[in-house]
Amino acid sequence: MAGDKKISMAVIRRLPRYFRYLYDLIRLDIRRISSKELSERMDITASQIRQDLNCFGGFGQQGYGYNVQSLYDEIGRILGVERRFSCALFGAGNMGNALANYENFQNRGFDITVIFDSAADKVGTAIHGIPVLHVDGMESFLKSKHVDIAILTVPNRAMPDITARVVKAGVKGIWNFSPTDLKLGEGIVVENVHLSDSLMVLGYRLMEQLREDAARRK
Amino acid sequence: MAGDKKISMAVIRRLPRYFRYLYDLIRLDIRRISSKELSERMDITASQIRQDLNCFGGFGQQGYGYNVQSLYDEIGRILGVERRFSCALFGAGNMGNALANYENFQNRGFDITVIFDSAADKVGTAIHGIPVLHVDGMESFLKSKHVDIAILTVPNRAMPDITARVVKAGVKGIWNFSPTDLKLGEGIVVENVHLSDSLMVLGYRLMEQLREDAARRK
Repeated sequence: MAGDKKISMAVIRRLPRYFRYLYDLIRLDIRRISSKELSERMDITASQIRQDLNCFGGFGQQGYGYNVQSLYDEIGRILGVERRFSCALFGAGNMGNALANYENFQNRGFDITVIFDSAADKVGTAIHGIPVLHVDGMESFLKSKHVDIAILTVPNRAMPDITARVVKAGVKGIWNFSPTDLKLGEGIVVENVHLSDSLMVLGYRLMEQLREDAARRK
Repeated sequence: MAGDKKISMAVIRRLPRYFRYLYDLIRLDIRRISSKELSERMDITASQIRQDLNCFGGFGQQGYGYNVQSLYDEIGRILGVERRFSCALFGAGNMGNALANYENFQNRGFDITVIFDSAADKVGTAIHGIPVLHVDGMESFLKSKHVDIAILTVPNRAMPDITARVVKAGVKGIWNFSPTDLKLGEGIVVENVHLSDSLMVLGYRLMEQLREDAARRK
């Protein structure tokens, strides 16, 4: 079994995608799947799949393939989907609103229990049933409610103050939507989301595609 | 020079991040940087940086490091930031609102020129100055305005219809925010954004961190 064995971050970063595809297979009532079939669905090479999934146990059997449900359960266990994290969302703007309304996070074990903002017209309201409190009261809330994760969607200029206070209040996980990568030192886990990075990759691939199309028409 | 040489997708996916860090260096008036310094800032190994950046020309010089501005310009050129893409946003909900208000996309060469929705209270309004039109009129708009990219933030049930129509209208690039990976076959470029994947990786890393913290306290 895995659990004690260290899995590389490169593999970990691919696990949520396996998890999604396996979930879809379960819904389609597909009980087992070969690395080749999974490879075609996921656009990953079969050898990459075998290498990734061999990291945490021998679910693949020669001539049988993977047991979809076992593999799904095991990946879920590794990712800790049965554990619940308490999250505080900072910023009740457009991105904050979008995230507060995203039901999927809760299904994955992440509960947004509070939203902090400083705007008078937002404080005291609720978004998707989650109360919006004034950011001044964050310290006592974060400590007393044992918040695990801060989701940051505040303007850039507010970032230094908010991050310093969040970390001081004992929050260990940061999901950062600001344009600048956060690095907060030992013991604080940060995931930075950069939507423009994904868009720029799309732009690059699209240019390549248009170039190929043009070459073919010649 | 690059341009003709094929750069691997793994490297391409890292370029937007280099681009952001180099931009920050320029703002700090740092003119040159060694792979070692860049490595410390970016949390990538220096050898990975040298390997990545050697793919497209020899900007790094022994004992001098990289010329920040040249490297920034070259990466921007490869990513095509000087090119402009016309984008249509589908879905004027929370995520659509967040994306329409994101100024950064325009700075990167992506112009959202229209928003499509079907809700009576949204059609005819504007978000961040961008008109919201009824989705029924998409075909003529997409064709006449030569839209390059469709940004999809519509509910899952609307996805099959919308994607089929968008592709039929000649759009070649799709930026997909729906929970399911889109695969649209030859000639259509798709980038799927999965925010929950990033959150699940954060959850995994946080569990590891809390485990380490607990072990240290013993």
